Amino acid sequence: MSTQAPDVVRSAYAQLSVTDLGAARWFWVDTLGFHIQYEDAGTLCLRGTDELTHHSLVLRKGDIAALDHISYRVRTPEDVDRAEKFFTELGRPVRRVPRGQGTPGVGDAVRVIDPLGFPVEFFHDIDRAERLIQRFDLHRGAQIARLDHFNICTPDIPAAYAHYKSLGFGCSETIEGDEHELYAAWMYRKQTVHDVAFTGGAGPRLHHLGVATHESHQVLRVADILGALNKHQDHIERGPGRHGVSNAFYLYLRDPDGHRVEIYTSDYYTGDPDHETYRWSVHDDRRRDFWGNAVIESWYKEATPVLGLAGKPLPVSDALLDESAVRVGADGLG
Amino acid sequence: MSTQAPDVVRSAYAQLSVTDLGAARWFWVDTLGFHIQYEDAGTLCLRGTDELTHHSLVLRKGDIAALDHISYRVRTPEDVDRAEKFFTELGRPVRRVPRGQGTPGVGDAVRVIDPLGFPVEFFHDIDRAERLIQRFDLHRGAQIARLDHFNICTPDIPAAYAHYKSLGFGCSETIEGDEHELYAAWMYRKQTVHDVAFTGGAGPRLHHLGVATHESHQVLRVADILGALNKHQDHIERGPGRHGVSNAFYLYLRDPDGHRVEIYTSDYYTGDPDHETYRWSVHDDRRRDFWGNAVIESWYKEATPVLGLAGKPLPVSDALLDESAVRVGADGLG
Amino acid sequence: MSTQAPDVVRSAYAQLSVTDLGAARWFWVDTLGFHIQYEDAGTLCLRGTDELTHHSLVLRKGDIAALDHISYRVRTPEDVDRAEKFFTELGRPVRRVPRGQGTPGVGDAVRVIDPLGFPVEFFHDIDRAERLIQRFDLHRGAQIARLDHFNICTPDIPAAYAHYKSLGFGCSETIEGDEHELYAAWMYRKQTVHDVAFTGGAGPRLHHLGVATHESHQVLRVADILGALNKHQDHIERGPGRHGVSNAFYLYLRDPDGHRVEIYTSDYYTGDPDHETYRWSVHDDRRRDFWGNAVIESWYKEATPVLGLAGKPLPVSDALLDESAVRVGADGLG
Amino acid sequence: MSTQAPDVVRSAYAQLSVTDLGAARWFWVDTLGFHIQYEDAGTLCLRGTDELTHHSLVLRKGDIAALDHISYRVRTPEDVDRAEKFFTELGRPVRRVPRGQGTPGVGDAVRVIDPLGFPVEFFHDIDRAERLIQRFDLHRGAQIARLDHFNICTPDIPAAYAHYKSLGFGCSETIEGDEHELYAAWMYRKQTVHDVAFTGGAGPRLHHLGVATHESHQVLRVADILGALNKHQDHIERGPGRHGVSNAFYLYLRDPDGHRVEIYTSDYYTGDPDHETYRWSVHDDRRRDFWGNAVIESWYKEATPVLGLAGKPLPVSDALLDESAVRVGADGLG
Repeated sequence: MSTQAPDVVRSAYAQLSVTDLGAARWFWVDTLGFHIQYEDAGTLCLRGTDELTHHSLVLRKGDIAALDHISYRVRTPEDVDRAEKFFTELGRPVRRVPRGQGTPGVGDAVRVIDPLGFPVEFFHDIDRAERLIQRFDLHRGAQIARLDHFNICTPDIPAAYAHYKSLGFGCSETIEGDEHELYAAWMYRKQTVHDVAFTGGAGPRLHHLGVATHESHQVLRVADILGALNKHQDHIERGPGRHGVSNAFYLYLRDPDGHRVEIYTSDYYTGDPDHETYRWSVHDDRRRDFWGNAVIESWYKEATPVLGLAGKPLPVSDALLDESAVRVGADGLG
Repeated sequence: MSTQAPDVVRSAYAQLSVTDLGAARWFWVDTLGFHIQYEDAGTLCLRGTDELTHHSLVLRKGDIAALDHISYRVRTPEDVDRAEKFFTELGRPVRRVPRGQGTPGVGDAVRVIDPLGFPVEFFHDIDRAERLIQRFDLHRGAQIARLDHFNICTPDIPAAYAHYKSLGFGCSETIEGDEHELYAAWMYRKQTVHDVAFTGGAGPRLHHLGVATHESHQVLRVADILGALNKHQDHIERGPGRHGVSNAFYLYLRDPDGHRVEIYTSDYYTGDPDHETYRWSVHDDRRRDFWGNAVIESWYKEATPVLGLAGKPLPVSDALLDESAVRVGADGLG
Repeated sequence: MSTQAPDVVRSAYAQLSVTDLGAARWFWVDTLGFHIQYEDAGTLCLRGTDELTHHSLVLRKGDIAALDHISYRVRTPEDVDRAEKFFTELGRPVRRVPRGQGTPGVGDAVRVIDPLGFPVEFFHDIDRAERLIQRFDLHRGAQIARLDHFNICTPDIPAAYAHYKSLGFGCSETIEGDEHELYAAWMYRKQTVHDVAFTGGAGPRLHHLGVATHESHQVLRVADILGALNKHQDHIERGPGRHGVSNAFYLYLRDPDGHRVEIYTSDYYTGDPDHETYRWSVHDDRRRDFWGNAVIESWYKEATPVLGLAGKPLPVSDALLDESAVRVGADGLG
Repeated sequence: MSTQAPDVVRSAYAQLSVTDLGAARWFWVDTLGFHIQYEDAGTLCLRGTDELTHHSLVLRKGDIAALDHISYRVRTPEDVDRAEKFFTELGRPVRRVPRGQGTPGVGDAVRVIDPLGFPVEFFHDIDRAERLIQRFDLHRGAQIARLDHFNICTPDIPAAYAHYKSLGFGCSETIEGDEHELYAAWMYRKQTVHDVAFTGGAGPRLHHLGVATHESHQVLRVADILGALNKHQDHIERGPGRHGVSNAFYLYLRDPDGHRVEIYTSDYYTGDPDHETYRWSVHDDRRRDFWGNAVIESWYKEATPVLGLAGKPLPVSDALLDESAVRVGADGLG
């Protein structure tokens, strides 16, 4: 790699276009427990209890339900320049976004359409936010602690793996076929199982945002609240369950626009320099649910469209492999 | 009712015929955490951490997987006589079983085939057992605290309701159709949601045994253990989830013979004399899972055959109503 | 006993005099999570999430911090008459309180000063309340499920034991000296460890109200909330811990008037007719805290004064035995 | 700083001298749930469920209870050389320990007596260990996931802070006096609150090892187990509680030799490059226990002696400041 990659610190925030900001606020703030750091007529900037920067989720009132961009924090201001150069040399669309012209609270940034077709932002500078870690009196709903990861649908998993490898990401876990063909991969910069994961499927589309709680009872609580609000149990799509991959306890919800969010807790440390990839066989039915519960169809098929730098939906390509069609129960990779 | 019914204290124990006692021991003792109170070549008498009487589950080596009997404790020795008289006057098969001729640890008992066709025992006298409530060093697996209830498949729910009403049981909850036709009912003597529940289906068959833990993390733990023992995740049939009916957090497992057990926690007090029945509409998809997760087919269809007083399997009649075929999503009873 | 005792169902509610109703509301409603069922300028009637009757706690604006009365529900209206006769024959002060002249929501009642000097009410009739068990969206703070018990300071524990025995209460646990002298006792009507317990000390005084949550994380949550509200950590008096007696996980708080409340979870079933008393040695340091943590001085010494039927504070006698002064570590009763 | 510091990845393991290896095994393995990775007549190498390297705790049979060394993993083999040079240039005792001559499973290492007087090892190479993260069937006791941190007693906190700053550690939290004099500090390399913390006191001595569980109920479980084994509740020294500093839920135990271990869960992410130090006032009684519970005397006063490179106990100097004597309740730093 001739050009130096930006030093990514972590997955930082996602910006979603939602068609009804009031409905979205009910879901993300009142029910899940995100805190409002900033709001205006068309925007909500939200964060979890443990987050010390301006936001980890931005909801923007839009005409369609879509992903504006996912965003990574980089280590230094110079890494923003490196990101610009890196994607320019790859021949990708690149746009510099100075403070005040992009997302509230975020300083100088660069936005690109990456080789996988995703709108991705890189920034270093972001406003600080008041410490709420111990403001237990303000914690509500699922008591979301922080954004944990992005999960994206992309047709070509090896290409996604190679791209993020070139950005310096490690790989914690994979799902592989008998010939080691790659069905899915989990990659990280911070010392958790992932900052980004790839789910094979038509893409570019956003599969889900993963947000972390401290304990599993907090995951259950949000399901109870949705059940209590009769008819709102439909926001529960899958789970709760234990993942094979990542070992996390999970619950998948759909917001009023259909954006998917995973409530996620208890994965593990990956910070050692020689941390090894753990490989699951696509035939092991515990890979997606450690208890062997079936994954429902919508979870494999539905996802959020993504917007280009000019705000238009990007075209989607079909997946090369279909994990949902694989026969399980055969011997695994171990 | 001319004859006085026996004063039932609580659901006390179930006796199951299992085809492989070693496999059953692995499941119930090593994995779920039941304590062995008595064993011989063909029998295991088991109890939970909080139980102060000899057993709440008996596993008997048999030729087929079946229910020998469910058993209720009655308030006084005279109530055993009352039970004998009560079922005799109903014209049902009745057999007196003196201490030493029946189940180990149990004193003078009477066994009947009740009007629903189920083998049911009534006893008062039972051996005490050492207090293990605070022997946390011995608690294992799901840390089962106690037997909570029996759930039985019976074709005619109103008949089951009427019979248990005649035995003095209260009714905590029901599932009902638009014309208040009864699809299921939960009935109690002790001050919990139930000692016995009726699931509409071909019967007489045992649907499941419900066993209680103190907290929900103990329910999750047994699922994790089964997942850890690869291929044993198949013992997990349904859940975890929150029930609409009873409000309990649940997980359904199948033992190596297919006997179903529910790990169950956090229902509510029903001891007031005027406790009212709470009625669910069969159209409310939260009744069986408060989070709206679908009930899988096997849960509605499969169950354990029951044995007559002479140890032969009893014939089964088809259900009058089929809850699993009802359309959900229509307006409920509230 | 020549006169028939009333058939007590359970500890039903306590009525406290508080000097600042706004401060009390902050503590009991906003922080602990009690629901308001009724309020007027001088009164709040509160209940837990699982309670189906009008209230389990009444806060009355008064001049001093005191207990108006503890109150038991009885099985039938006739049991109210029985209570009146029972205490009249004991020569105790007795007052009949018709519906509308006593506590809101409560029907015909009788109030007495019992032989221990405590103001005690007995009633059967009480208004129903909307079911909130599954209104998880309304559950707050410690998510209190229900009143569990009263704990009273009384100088003569054997006398208290004998009186409640005459009312038909069972005894689940005791603390005893080397010669079986009684330091404390836990007595029940409903099928839990207790409806009432006696702590040796100057009395009559109310030691605490015990309120139950479903799980231990809900106990911890209220401590976290109080810590978050700086200076309000002073409301935490003792715990969290595991009791030896009762096995419950506990936390003791003091309300703004100094009334003590125990957040309590996970005791055990006592409903069998021959349930045996479990006896702790006063020398076993696990009796009050199973982990051996020391009980702080204020917990043994401080308590709420009680009011007579005319609303005046009742005089207090000194304790016959002082548990807090006993040397621990000697051999126990086992 | 002229010489380059080694790039420390994380706190890796501690090696303790214990006087009774069987008693230590009962405590750390049977009760806390550590897994044995290696054992011989005089040594046990232990690790938690989530640890993928050879051990995080070594118990060595010795004549006295002491700390052999704490040990940090560094990023590359060259960082071991850097560590040797770094401490040599500081004029500190330094010893190179090739693979096979030091602790089992550990490759080429360097051991030093650091400027604070502590025996500290640095290594890169260590044997891998089988993944047990999802072997829930093998998880026992407190289900310890991993070593989290070392806490050391040192007389001069600013000196300790300066030394670890020179090693590239960040500072997450401090306890400070009115004039910002430093009473305690928490410093990290991995992305948690700390790898090492300094408690003011006579030193060099090891205050405690911090080991992490995933959830708070696992912390409570080990206390329950110790209570169950009567007389063993004495191993519980302090807690459970919530720390102000770090926000973790904690429990302090003493092993059979008096070595202190903290069971610790739920702190927060510190991986951002500009993560700010959070400062507590020494007058805020929530700093050590967020619920305001008093810290017991032994916790401030007692600690484990440390051994020099030749295996002899090192002399101890008195603390410059005494946090335990400070008056709390005055205004804090916020």
